[in-house]
Amino acid sequence: MIKAGIIGATGYAGGELVRLLTGHKNTEVIWYGSRSYIDKKYAEVYQNMFRIVEEKCLDDNMEELADQADVIFTATPQGFCASMMKEEILAKTKLIDLSADYRIKDVNVYEKWYGIEHKSPQFIKEAVYGLCEVNRDDIRKARLVANPGCYTTCSILTAYPLAKEGLIDMSTLIIDAKSGTSGAGRGAKVSNLYCEVNENIKAYGVAAHRHTPEIEEQLGYAAQEKVVLNFTPHLVPMNRGILVTEYASLKKRVTYEDVKAVYDKYYGKEYFIRFLEEGVYPETKWVEGSNYVDINVKLDPRTNRIIMMGAIDNLVKGAAGQAVQNMNLMFGLPESEGLKLVPMFP
Amino acid sequence: MIKAGIIGATGYAGGELVRLLTGHKNTEVIWYGSRSYIDKKYAEVYQNMFRIVEEKCLDDNMEELADQADVIFTATPQGFCASMMKEEILAKTKLIDLSADYRIKDVNVYEKWYGIEHKSPQFIKEAVYGLCEVNRDDIRKARLVANPGCYTTCSILTAYPLAKEGLIDMSTLIIDAKSGTSGAGRGAKVSNLYCEVNENIKAYGVAAHRHTPEIEEQLGYAAQEKVVLNFTPHLVPMNRGILVTEYASLKKRVTYEDVKAVYDKYYGKEYFIRFLEEGVYPETKWVEGSNYVDINVKLDPRTNRIIMMGAIDNLVKGAAGQAVQNMNLMFGLPESEGLKLVPMFP
Amino acid sequence: MIKAGIIGATGYAGGELVRLLTGHKNTEVIWYGSRSYIDKKYAEVYQNMFRIVEEKCLDDNMEELADQADVIFTATPQGFCASMMKEEILAKTKLIDLSADYRIKDVNVYEKWYGIEHKSPQFIKEAVYGLCEVNRDDIRKARLVANPGCYTTCSILTAYPLAKEGLIDMSTLIIDAKSGTSGAGRGAKVSNLYCEVNENIKAYGVAAHRHTPEIEEQLGYAAQEKVVLNFTPHLVPMNRGILVTEYASLKKRVTYEDVKAVYDKYYGKEYFIRFLEEGVYPETKWVEGSNYVDINVKLDPRTNRIIMMGAIDNLVKGAAGQAVQNMNLMFGLPESEGLKLVPMFP
Amino acid sequence: MIKAGIIGATGYAGGELVRLLTGHKNTEVIWYGSRSYIDKKYAEVYQNMFRIVEEKCLDDNMEELADQADVIFTATPQGFCASMMKEEILAKTKLIDLSADYRIKDVNVYEKWYGIEHKSPQFIKEAVYGLCEVNRDDIRKARLVANPGCYTTCSILTAYPLAKEGLIDMSTLIIDAKSGTSGAGRGAKVSNLYCEVNENIKAYGVAAHRHTPEIEEQLGYAAQEKVVLNFTPHLVPMNRGILVTEYASLKKRVTYEDVKAVYDKYYGKEYFIRFLEEGVYPETKWVEGSNYVDINVKLDPRTNRIIMMGAIDNLVKGAAGQAVQNMNLMFGLPESEGLKLVPMFP
Repeated sequence: MIKAGIIGATGYAGGELVRLLTGHKNTEVIWYGSRSYIDKKYAEVYQNMFRIVEEKCLDDNMEELADQADVIFTATPQGFCASMMKEEILAKTKLIDLSADYRIKDVNVYEKWYGIEHKSPQFIKEAVYGLCEVNRDDIRKARLVANPGCYTTCSILTAYPLAKEGLIDMSTLIIDAKSGTSGAGRGAKVSNLYCEVNENIKAYGVAAHRHTPEIEEQLGYAAQEKVVLNFTPHLVPMNRGILVTEYASLKKRVTYEDVKAVYDKYYGKEYFIRFLEEGVYPETKWVEGSNYVDINVKLDPRTNRIIMMGAIDNLVKGAAGQAVQNMNLMFGLPESEGLKLVPMFP
Repeated sequence: MIKAGIIGATGYAGGELVRLLTGHKNTEVIWYGSRSYIDKKYAEVYQNMFRIVEEKCLDDNMEELADQADVIFTATPQGFCASMMKEEILAKTKLIDLSADYRIKDVNVYEKWYGIEHKSPQFIKEAVYGLCEVNRDDIRKARLVANPGCYTTCSILTAYPLAKEGLIDMSTLIIDAKSGTSGAGRGAKVSNLYCEVNENIKAYGVAAHRHTPEIEEQLGYAAQEKVVLNFTPHLVPMNRGILVTEYASLKKRVTYEDVKAVYDKYYGKEYFIRFLEEGVYPETKWVEGSNYVDINVKLDPRTNRIIMMGAIDNLVKGAAGQAVQNMNLMFGLPESEGLKLVPMFP
Repeated sequence: MIKAGIIGATGYAGGELVRLLTGHKNTEVIWYGSRSYIDKKYAEVYQNMFRIVEEKCLDDNMEELADQADVIFTATPQGFCASMMKEEILAKTKLIDLSADYRIKDVNVYEKWYGIEHKSPQFIKEAVYGLCEVNRDDIRKARLVANPGCYTTCSILTAYPLAKEGLIDMSTLIIDAKSGTSGAGRGAKVSNLYCEVNENIKAYGVAAHRHTPEIEEQLGYAAQEKVVLNFTPHLVPMNRGILVTEYASLKKRVTYEDVKAVYDKYYGKEYFIRFLEEGVYPETKWVEGSNYVDINVKLDPRTNRIIMMGAIDNLVKGAAGQAVQNMNLMFGLPESEGLKLVPMFP
Repeated sequence: MIKAGIIGATGYAGGELVRLLTGHKNTEVIWYGSRSYIDKKYAEVYQNMFRIVEEKCLDDNMEELADQADVIFTATPQGFCASMMKEEILAKTKLIDLSADYRIKDVNVYEKWYGIEHKSPQFIKEAVYGLCEVNRDDIRKARLVANPGCYTTCSILTAYPLAKEGLIDMSTLIIDAKSGTSGAGRGAKVSNLYCEVNENIKAYGVAAHRHTPEIEEQLGYAAQEKVVLNFTPHLVPMNRGILVTEYASLKKRVTYEDVKAVYDKYYGKEYFIRFLEEGVYPETKWVEGSNYVDINVKLDPRTNRIIMMGAIDNLVKGAAGQAVQNMNLMFGLPESEGLKLVPMFP
């Protein structure tokens, strides 16, 4: 039984981790860390867990937790994990960080986009970017995994095979993303109130969202060139789900079958990536509650562009599900253990 | 491996049955019956099942299905199951009917409220009303189970212990119920369009809803008297969930603790019924996707009434989940097999 | 031109007042009071008012405002208006208080239910309860109007004619109410976040909601007896709208036509009250954005009860619209001036 | 008093026309045409109009209507208006067609994208494209106005000044659009059911949507070159609203102030177009129920692109509101008559 500790267990991503780990036959959650709710019963914070989780919330003492846990998940604000990290912790336990602290290799880029000083840059090199379908082998050996962002997971996986195979002109890549509101977290802000989000759609963080450099870095590795792109997130009145619509110019004439073959080459054996039938476009509802990524493309000969579309559940493949997938890899378990969740419809 | 056939597999309740049976380790779905989509791949009707269900939809030939299946689920319009039923079918297979055909013992009451002739009243007596927590022993021995309605499951279980123990005056019982829109089915009707339901709430079937006699009959058995009550359903802009708010006058002075003790007497060992902490009222979101029934009460000394509240997921405990729970009982499996679903939040 | 000042202009009710007064040909808003946003442009708080309202937010100095305004609207938390009130203010200006401070005639009842001390009980007697269709004549002469609560407006008007004519047994009256989320205000609370309200319904304030004594007092005047009842509010995932479903036993045998005649007697000439056609039940969407109250009833001979249903837009007839209607009466304008808003659908 | 007839009065756009014309002081609706509901009271189809509209629905006899009406609005399926059109009708009355029949000047393009034969191409040349802010003078003199599509109105107006002034490379223009569900009409289709749309977002009509050639034609006039672009609509779980996010490469180095000056040049005096403050991006909720178009842009020096954003209410500026604006122009009324609607929030 893997002993798992969660710091930040009462945010939405933390709550989803609890849901997934509760149903995972090889893990036991031994620490529900939540600075805001110390000593409160976890099930009083999330009543859906009544009679399922009996424990109380604990603090965020990562050192003490490292003594007890085989793996620590940090679902905490940017900067927290980096501020607590030391060799002693990694010597004792594995760590999967759901924040952005170790996702970006260039600490200057991190500090510029996030506007904070990185407190433990010495671990950035060691950290493995936990996009399972791309970095599987490195993840298996890692002590420290940087779990990818929600937008980035969806954005990267949707374009990755075409970037890797050089089919698209990376300088033309534009990513228009749409997210459910759980991505905004559980903080009490006026802009996230029901009446402000409901019956409304808006863009935000235009040409300035922090997931941009993460997408650029990873797609840059795939394309083996420096990538600069536009990424525009939008807030959609729904709880869960991310849909990305990506546009790029094709570098050569290809057919739908050619493109499908490229996706099959990279994803044909992937359990969690479903390349849909021709003409069927991803919808967030079809992956809700699951770890799937649904992808399809449409070629437009009129403009010589390809439109790539991808959908995930932001709290599962975009956060907690991918974290569990990383844990499975790190502990030598079957990669889909505890994650064969059938999407819920409606 | 239990071979299960579903007739009506492409309605919302049928789809939920597929979701639950797909995750059930002792069953295999061998028949996806859907008159509307014969020969179409099931996953084209419900894209969430892409790469999970490969089969095509079949017709609704119950006789042929009875030769192949160990259990048949009928998630079909009222009257269908009764019109197909014969001894030969029950001799070969078990049957769980999610329609109302065998729920009401008095065929005249059925025919009056449903406005159709019952085509096989000879099976009504044999049929067991599949409210698991109440009729567990009879269900274990049944060939034919009448799976309760969604509103009725929630309405009955919320008041059952108090009716049984004679604490409330049954002539004062009023049930005000609120349901998500999946309860209205997948039929293409203007009144169920997004723009008609969204940002709206309304009562319907006032003093005329078909679930009324079913609730009255079952609570009558509990109270051992004839029960006549008001039941008012409302349509709420959400996909899933039923909340009932029930009002009744108390027959004697009792405390919250007294009442809690009564609920504990009947439900204390029930896996799927959660009597909440004092002051915490049921919310549909806390049971979403799960087979739980959340219940609590509030006593009002000013009016000498008790307000009982209960919440379920209408597609799970209100339909497919309870059907699987019945199947587990009928086949001697652990009652919660395949149903330990953690509610999804948000 | 009536000079109107609003204190609490940046709450949802205050915002709706701005919307209505902006379209009212006899008024000019001269004061947008908002303690939280002093010196900020009003249109930066509510971007829908961009290029419509150019003014900045001011403080809540009621004395200074009284010098400038012909009428003051207070859309403020309970206790504020009472704490600021003095004869000097009422000597200079009319005041319409959207809070509960002057709604309840018995100051002890107010202090018990609201849990605060009333700071100016000497004005309670003078204050007129601003339920226009009931107290029209007194409102015309009033200096100080207590604008009714949202739930109470809908609850009272729906039952009023039957209470007045003695058709129903008031001791059996139960009010089950459902409200959109704007009724919870614009405060940043976790419980009002999009993800907490969406796809969810719950009861709250069960047997304890502050609107209860207000409903009891007013229906008591109508029935000429002391009324004690159950009132249960529910939170519905929609922005606007209140639906009440009220249950009571009939004191004598009546037909639908008899009951309709009673409603016609009281409401037949009312512009804002629509008694619907038989069999058509109120839906909140049909009154959205308007000052209408839609009402209908269903008689149930099986239980000898009548089910009364009413719907309003909680921000219009339940708050700002009724406040403007009161203002029209107080200033001798046509009662529907600025309020002939056609409900918006969908 | 202008006598107005509506054919297609019971669709969502038709319903909105009724709402707007009911509040318009110079018009009287004399014909509520609805093939599906002939002889049914209009207010039974749209209960929000109870006691506001007393008339019954009539047929779609355009010739008879032409004898009675000063202006006819056709809010009908593609092809209907073209099939009924003749000189005799235009000789007697003005016509504003909300369908696409006369929007596209090249009949071959129309027939290819719409897949139907145009039955009266002889009127295409005469028809004026009713984008009021662009074609105001021609509209004033027109007998036949082709009211623009919802997506097209928003897409064109958002980019128009930059296209006109040659600031953007038109070959790089990509339009990613998001629409509420009322745009899909009131037809009873499974894909528009509440449970299918709610908690979901998807792209549709990718590289194939019929509004594409309309946008290309109009922006081509502005840019004075042939324009071919990508347009991708998405379905959003909300009733009303369209948001477009448009991407294009800049042809020269410009500042935000430069761009703002260009928008001011074209829209500075427009009542219905609001160019927002820098850093404030359009949200559909801020224009809901109104005829406003909210626009802003963000320059991205990293990619040398400009991101243009625009928001409208699809049923108002995207359909009925613009139709009334056109009517006002055609009849010499103030352009904003009956359209000074304050957006409703929340």
